[in-house]
Amino acid sequence: MPEGIEIVAIGNELLKGITVNTNASEISHALFKNGYKCQQHVVVPDHRELIKKQLIQSLKRSKIVITTGGLGPTCDDITRQVAAEVFESDFTFNVALAEELKQRYGNLPISLDDQATVPTKASLLKNPLGTAPGIVFNTEIGTLILMPGVPKEMRAMLHDQLIPYLLKNFPNDTSPLSRAVHFFGVGESTIDPTLRALEVQHPTAEFGIYPSHGLLSVYTTFNQPTAHSAHELETITTAIKQQFPEHFYSETSEKIEVAIQDLLVQKDWTLCTAESCTGGAIAARLTKIPGSSQYFLGGFVTYSNQLKESLLHVDSEIILRDGAVNEETVIAMAKGALHSTGSDFSIAVSGIAGPTGGSESKPVGTIWIGIGKKDGTVCTHKIKAYGNREMIIERGVNAALGELFKCASR
Amino acid sequence: MPEGIEIVAIGNELLKGITVNTNASEISHALFKNGYKCQQHVVVPDHRELIKKQLIQSLKRSKIVITTGGLGPTCDDITRQVAAEVFESDFTFNVALAEELKQRYGNLPISLDDQATVPTKASLLKNPLGTAPGIVFNTEIGTLILMPGVPKEMRAMLHDQLIPYLLKNFPNDTSPLSRAVHFFGVGESTIDPTLRALEVQHPTAEFGIYPSHGLLSVYTTFNQPTAHSAHELETITTAIKQQFPEHFYSETSEKIEVAIQDLLVQKDWTLCTAESCTGGAIAARLTKIPGSSQYFLGGFVTYSNQLKESLLHVDSEIILRDGAVNEETVIAMAKGALHSTGSDFSIAVSGIAGPTGGSESKPVGTIWIGIGKKDGTVCTHKIKAYGNREMIIERGVNAALGELFKCASR
Repeated sequence: MPEGIEIVAIGNELLKGITVNTNASEISHALFKNGYKCQQHVVVPDHRELIKKQLIQSLKRSKIVITTGGLGPTCDDITRQVAAEVFESDFTFNVALAEELKQRYGNLPISLDDQATVPTKASLLKNPLGTAPGIVFNTEIGTLILMPGVPKEMRAMLHDQLIPYLLKNFPNDTSPLSRAVHFFGVGESTIDPTLRALEVQHPTAEFGIYPSHGLLSVYTTFNQPTAHSAHELETITTAIKQQFPEHFYSETSEKIEVAIQDLLVQKDWTLCTAESCTGGAIAARLTKIPGSSQYFLGGFVTYSNQLKESLLHVDSEIILRDGAVNEETVIAMAKGALHSTGSDFSIAVSGIAGPTGGSESKPVGTIWIGIGKKDGTVCTHKIKAYGNREMIIERGVNAALGELFKCASR
Repeated sequence: MPEGIEIVAIGNELLKGITVNTNASEISHALFKNGYKCQQHVVVPDHRELIKKQLIQSLKRSKIVITTGGLGPTCDDITRQVAAEVFESDFTFNVALAEELKQRYGNLPISLDDQATVPTKASLLKNPLGTAPGIVFNTEIGTLILMPGVPKEMRAMLHDQLIPYLLKNFPNDTSPLSRAVHFFGVGESTIDPTLRALEVQHPTAEFGIYPSHGLLSVYTTFNQPTAHSAHELETITTAIKQQFPEHFYSETSEKIEVAIQDLLVQKDWTLCTAESCTGGAIAARLTKIPGSSQYFLGGFVTYSNQLKESLLHVDSEIILRDGAVNEETVIAMAKGALHSTGSDFSIAVSGIAGPTGGSESKPVGTIWIGIGKKDGTVCTHKIKAYGNREMIIERGVNAALGELFKCASR
């Protein structure tokens, strides 16, 4: 008896590494949050025989198979045809769908008729952002759900169509119980002993540690929950949080910028940024969250030393003497930004993102962070990030957001 | 006879959607660029039996199997053991490796000894950033290469160890010939007819179109190149570029910020930014590229209207009358930023990223872009982006970078 859910992504661009398979990840996360188990991902090329072979194999081993890609109107979009072959289905012209597509996209492209020609044995999932509907086969052969490959279309349908369809037609009897705890500034090896001790006390709990550039999430899961599991999960979660109270920021979102937004909006505080080596990445992270304009006023990217002086009034003496990566500079940047914007808090960052520009006393990865408060005080913090330029920037952003959260939450 | 290369990623976190399988994408892209064909990706959980089953299956169908993940010292890192079982290999303690790890990481953790215990039948690939070496089995059973799952470790080894190993031991007889052309501001449907016409003239060429939030890459590939293919590829590439000369930015990098950096550094021009709805994302994109400090001076994130007025001298009358999303505002922002920084060019952006804040006359996704030049002129451009907040921001960033490239390259 096949079990679990499997995701089959179809597309040459994935196998050439031109695009990343974010679809599989997003679907998996939505499944996980809704208590479904994704047991395998597969990526196959836009090749009729290979797709067919894979679908047959996947349907044999998995209860539900979800594909992405190959649903468009062009000639290399062959998923629908292959799936119909596997399910031995004819095609019908769906008049209602054709009418709707015409209303949305006008009368011109012949391919709309093609998109409205759907397998007889399948039902459809509405695609509000594109022309290709989702297609659901659910017969004695198995359950196969075809989703579009364009991430924006897939994402919209995932939450509004696919998950509701699964919850209705394949309700979870034994949903795993899971809870997350999110930290900043804690390393994997620091938290490991705590989890090992908890593992002994709670042998049926499964622990996962997921570090990400200076942030770290711990997931505790009971795959076969009993009547006691909820209580146990509460005990475990509390124990994990209490071990590192100064580094805890959320149980609900792994995004520390969401925790910051919730906190600052609740306190009615405002924030600005003064970035050098992070180059605007802190502001960009904050403003990706809807509603960030409620507390985020704006900021400066003072990449050149000249702009640090002219916009933020960093003393040219400091820079002449010791360059722009030091405590004095981030203090001056934090104060300058507060002064120009009138915010309650400021974040200032200056460091060496590399690959060049490092020295023995200040190697690549050295980052100074300053958190300014309206009263004129600035808390500073220095980190040494590793990795390539992109990772150093990411680490600097997370460390700065962590420091801000710490300052603002006390 | 098994053919091609297959990537097997091992990790529960991938199947829960907590991390994205960027490793598979990066390996695939490196393979593709070096003329190797990646024919399948698979992701399996940290489960002994499932990993073993998958490895056996993958080795049957693929000439080379590359795994990522499960090489660390903790108890759920089981890839090495399972691979050794498949290849019927014992383990030996590698004294030289143990010595090297001790020198790098000190004498403490017992797990270093574990990391230095490697399969007898395998050779090793050096891991300069972590404790787990890459492990290569190459016997009559097949070729299996185990790589670490931590992206930074994997990436360093990919380019310095894995690709050189493949080039030496599995040289390409028939490397495909491939060339890319990268455009901004061209839609997939606009370029499609050109490619269809070229397809008729060059039946052995394979075309791929990869749109990404307002940028678009066209790849032309000859999978079985002949003596004429290089010449044909040149003809095709020229034809594609000539169709949309105003939208072409690079043949070498899909990153438009790299083309901008090359152009501005060559001309000795400087740039600054004044961002509202993109919230620092333009500056962040530019400064991710090493060497961006050669031309990028810095910028403003004027998220609140007050900062648009106080920092960039946008006339409060304009904002009172028509809000901050209009041509006059981006003109004033572009001029204000030029004035404050003394740059040769400025990019100004103001728009509605949503999900709220839209109106009938200015729906969510409306973005105004202004490109300021030192002589005081500002070219403006308006776009309507679709999708969710993150996509609208991404689209705004790409459109703004495209407009800057256009202005600066003429």
